[in-house]
Amino acid sequence: MRLATVRVEGEQRIAAVINDEYIDLNKACELLFESKGQARAKQIAEAYIPPNMIGFLQGGEDSTNLAKESIEYVQNNDFSDDVKRKLYYEGKQVKLESPIQKPEKIICVGLNYREHIEEMGRELPTIPVVFAKYNNTIIAPGDPILKPKVSDALDHEAELVVVIGKKGKYISEEEAMDYVAGYTVGNEATIRDFQKRTKEWLQGKTFDTTLPLGPHLVTKESLPNPDNCDLVLTLNGEERQRSNTKNLVFTIPYLVNFLSNIMTLEVGDIICTGTPGGVGQARKPQSWMKHGDVVRVEIEGIGALENPIVNE
Amino acid sequence: MRLATVRVEGEQRIAAVINDEYIDLNKACELLFESKGQARAKQIAEAYIPPNMIGFLQGGEDSTNLAKESIEYVQNNDFSDDVKRKLYYEGKQVKLESPIQKPEKIICVGLNYREHIEEMGRELPTIPVVFAKYNNTIIAPGDPILKPKVSDALDHEAELVVVIGKKGKYISEEEAMDYVAGYTVGNEATIRDFQKRTKEWLQGKTFDTTLPLGPHLVTKESLPNPDNCDLVLTLNGEERQRSNTKNLVFTIPYLVNFLSNIMTLEVGDIICTGTPGGVGQARKPQSWMKHGDVVRVEIEGIGALENPIVNE
Repeated sequence: MRLATVRVEGEQRIAAVINDEYIDLNKACELLFESKGQARAKQIAEAYIPPNMIGFLQGGEDSTNLAKESIEYVQNNDFSDDVKRKLYYEGKQVKLESPIQKPEKIICVGLNYREHIEEMGRELPTIPVVFAKYNNTIIAPGDPILKPKVSDALDHEAELVVVIGKKGKYISEEEAMDYVAGYTVGNEATIRDFQKRTKEWLQGKTFDTTLPLGPHLVTKESLPNPDNCDLVLTLNGEERQRSNTKNLVFTIPYLVNFLSNIMTLEVGDIICTGTPGGVGQARKPQSWMKHGDVVRVEIEGIGALENPIVNE
Repeated sequence: MRLATVRVEGEQRIAAVINDEYIDLNKACELLFESKGQARAKQIAEAYIPPNMIGFLQGGEDSTNLAKESIEYVQNNDFSDDVKRKLYYEGKQVKLESPIQKPEKIICVGLNYREHIEEMGRELPTIPVVFAKYNNTIIAPGDPILKPKVSDALDHEAELVVVIGKKGKYISEEEAMDYVAGYTVGNEATIRDFQKRTKEWLQGKTFDTTLPLGPHLVTKESLPNPDNCDLVLTLNGEERQRSNTKNLVFTIPYLVNFLSNIMTLEVGDIICTGTPGGVGQARKPQSWMKHGDVVRVEIEGIGALENPIVNE
């Protein structure tokens, strides 16, 4: 499935994306239950498929299977215009939001693209470097990344983002994919001077609006080869970063195992898996994103995430 | 006020702590409204003083003033035994929880005690070093700090913890205290080998159960001199860390200003302000906390936070 968090007439909903149309998952489930004569169909639909992504993912396979059945049901039946208005949305009706809104954790992995590390003449790391961003960083596709007043060194980092779908600790590499809900695209934007001015990167990594996510959450069965996806970042249409997720030093199962040996992973936690070469800092001369720029990250099989840069 | 998050018969409540007795704030508020003939007293009390600390703090001065009025009202009136059972709790009836449960951010400050930095022969930093922990770290007073399977290097860090009470960005030092709700005690426990093995400290800082908080949240008007409080950590009764918050290099107003220039601070965010000398890592020989130990952090005017160490 391809899932989206959308805002419709001011209200947040989750939807399946099919051919540029959005099917409201909660409403579809309610209609399915009603068709079966289920008492309290609305409340039970809300319990299994609440209109927020983390709540839905917490439902695990029960909720996922129900979502699939609901989509199939509404696609094979006709409804009154009144019902359709709450069931189907066109692109122009919705404001796309970040697929995940307030995860418990945003876990970021540092240097993780093989060819970039080798081109820099460094040795491949044996232990992942991990750091955090807070939820103040998350913004939606199309929302502005704010260039802060206090710095001009606003850089981009195209990343494959993994969304955790099941709570766990000490998850083996073999079982890791059972704990993954799916994937989205991230731009792990960074204020380089603030990142570098102390030993710890956090202060350059967690400025407001520096983690656009989207456009959709693609569930794992719909992206069978997350370890072989092209990933491209353009700035004002000019290519700046290009690689393929096969170049990840630490794979998704490795990272899930590694991180879950340290901390309990929760449903909705996101792992930003690192960025390949081509960031503004490494260019000669260095170049930063500035007011009026448009940055776009596209990952094969997931989609494109585009955001303007706007002075704070 | 001295506030606590408590669990009573499996249910989470917030309470004012007065002479070792807990007054249920939500219930007290409901009784106050009832005494005024307020319609929907229960629902309105719930709106102003919900039984969770961050929700209560979000109410700002309105909720705080109402809490004070409610406490005064119930202290000056008598109630039936049935009512009293839901209004007053004795210590043995409650399980004390962390005063703050799921903050948006846990922001930690690195080297920040003057005498410790000087004794180490280092120069005073000009910019705070900040790093993160995730919410998986937070535990209650008395709860076990788990020594993880993967490391023995479990160290303690006694810290004054600041709780944010008002959302803000670009908060000046002069206005900073308007954004502080109050204080609690923290033990910012650390897995030293994991902290040191990569450039970024996060992986050694965010093991499950490594941030005991408590025992209470003391509101700022009840701790007028947070910049002059003795702070002592003992391990099995033996003193390991001792200092006074007057030795902080970066004061609370400085940190609130500094951090809010980077990120929007939210109600309930917590700032762990750093630890003085005497950590296990700096001892000769180095010494780590181990199964069966009891670690206790006490800060003048706030209270003592005690936790056992238990093998995972």
